[in-house]
Amino acid sequence: MNIKIKFGKRLKEIRNQKKITQEKLSELANIDRSYISDIERGIKSVSLEKMDQLAKALEVNIIEFFKF
Amino acid sequence: MNIKIKFGKRLKEIRNQKKITQEKLSELANIDRSYISDIERGIKSVSLEKMDQLAKALEVNIIEFFKF
Repeated sequence: MNIKIKFGKRLKEIRNQKKITQEKLSELANIDRSYISDIERGIKSVSLEKMDQLAKALEVNIIEFFKF
Repeated sequence: MNIKIKFGKRLKEIRNQKKITQEKLSELANIDRSYISDIERGIKSVSLEKMDQLAKALEVNIIEFFKF
């Protein structure tokens, strides 16, 4: 499974555990909702900065995204 | 310390532990040496795919880059 798909699945898993919608995450992380959707579906890649924004918005350590 | 600087320091640390030069890593990971140098100095960001290439080239799990 390629890294984008693995990362996307893990982001979605953490977001759902936190009971946060894509809409809310988009607001918290200041990232466009459709971009979040593409990341979760493994279509779009993610830069370090976006990972950092997502981790802060979800209140998790960035390392959590790589526990797959 | 911003995420790019933290990641860059950690990449350099792992590369040195493995006694691999930037030149050799550039060859193994198929990433331009000057780009690796910029990443290590926290100047350039890194995509998921480049992280994956770097991790495979260094024979470490990608999670290692985030143990800072």
